[in-house]
Amino acid sequence: MSTIPAASDAVVDLLALLAYTELVAFDRMAADARLAPDLHRRAALSEMAALEIAHYGRLAARLGELGVNAEAAMVPYVAPVSAYHEQTEPKDWLEGLTKAYVGDGMADDFTREVAGVLPAGPDRDLVLDVLHDSRHGDYAAEEIRAAIAVDPRVANRLSMWARRLVGEGISQAVRVAGERPALASLLVSGPEPDLQVLLRRLTIAHTTRMAAVGLNN
Amino acid sequence: MSTIPAASDAVVDLLALLAYTELVAFDRMAADARLAPDLHRRAALSEMAALEIAHYGRLAARLGELGVNAEAAMVPYVAPVSAYHEQTEPKDWLEGLTKAYVGDGMADDFTREVAGVLPAGPDRDLVLDVLHDSRHGDYAAEEIRAAIAVDPRVANRLSMWARRLVGEGISQAVRVAGERPALASLLVSGPEPDLQVLLRRLTIAHTTRMAAVGLNN
Repeated sequence: MSTIPAASDAVVDLLALLAYTELVAFDRMAADARLAPDLHRRAALSEMAALEIAHYGRLAARLGELGVNAEAAMVPYVAPVSAYHEQTEPKDWLEGLTKAYVGDGMADDFTREVAGVLPAGPDRDLVLDVLHDSRHGDYAAEEIRAAIAVDPRVANRLSMWARRLVGEGISQAVRVAGERPALASLLVSGPEPDLQVLLRRLTIAHTTRMAAVGLNN
Repeated sequence: MSTIPAASDAVVDLLALLAYTELVAFDRMAADARLAPDLHRRAALSEMAALEIAHYGRLAARLGELGVNAEAAMVPYVAPVSAYHEQTEPKDWLEGLTKAYVGDGMADDFTREVAGVLPAGPDRDLVLDVLHDSRHGDYAAEEIRAAIAVDPRVANRLSMWARRLVGEGISQAVRVAGERPALASLLVSGPEPDLQVLLRRLTIAHTTRMAAVGLNN
């Protein structure tokens, strides 16, 4: 069990990253809900946001159990996560939904990859538990598909928007990896230590997700 | 059971009023959470907001069960609820917390009064269930008390702010009562049909709540 100290650092990094991501996602989604064209849709995005803050609460509680000050542990992620959201502020409802669909999808893929290399135990269970509810992704997907059916030009606009989300997401992920080496090394500590293979897998998942709603990568 | 049609109208009015109030409270609290001086406090208000949207979901679902279009039923409350929030936008964290404490407290007192005159059944249970979690009121109260302990001048400022909240709340409640007579008549249909007595009771509860955190009515 000589890997425990390093794994613990990385796990704390991961829990704190997820916690801060959820805290900010709550705030941003709550704001994006105002872009909804009606109260029903507004409530749908608000409910997605609420789940993020519930997840935040569980992650912060776990950090507390591990004797970690959640707030201090989240500090390294404030700048990259804020930068991501500042560069990807949705201008309308469909951009907001696409951000939820594409961004949450990518975040979940990444999280699942990391969870795969964590030792079995409460932390891995928690990380898998705070993945986004698939109902929410399905809802966003349906809305995007419906909008494209009404006006096919929407697909082009949202495809470009999704590329911007991916670009900004990757650029901030690289920044995080550079600043948190324990977290980064976790990703390449599993049975598949080849970062190229991992990136290819994430890319395929993203392309499939885009195609599922009629967007081009 | 000759009162069923009238009671049903009033119950729909009440559920829709509560639903819209929760939907907007979610949005406003989520925004006010940005005023928090640290991430821990920001999360606390965000979690309060999340509960509002969960309650909204239950109320909207119940309206659906009753065959009512929740969105249409909420329309009459859009203007008064928006006006309340536009007139009472917190400038800082303590104003936001005081708004949650005083505003939620008043709303709950009012809701409890109305629930008291509803016939026993799922709607009354639901209305009582969506009262605010007392832990949240306790949290806000502790924060306000602590701030006053550090700087007693805060009490004056927040007392004035609370008076504005009450004034604006009453003025919008009167507006709602004027526009929704079924809802208004519900309030005076119970064993205590005297509006003066009801208002006195609500005032006493408010004064007690203010005193509990060191604020003056």
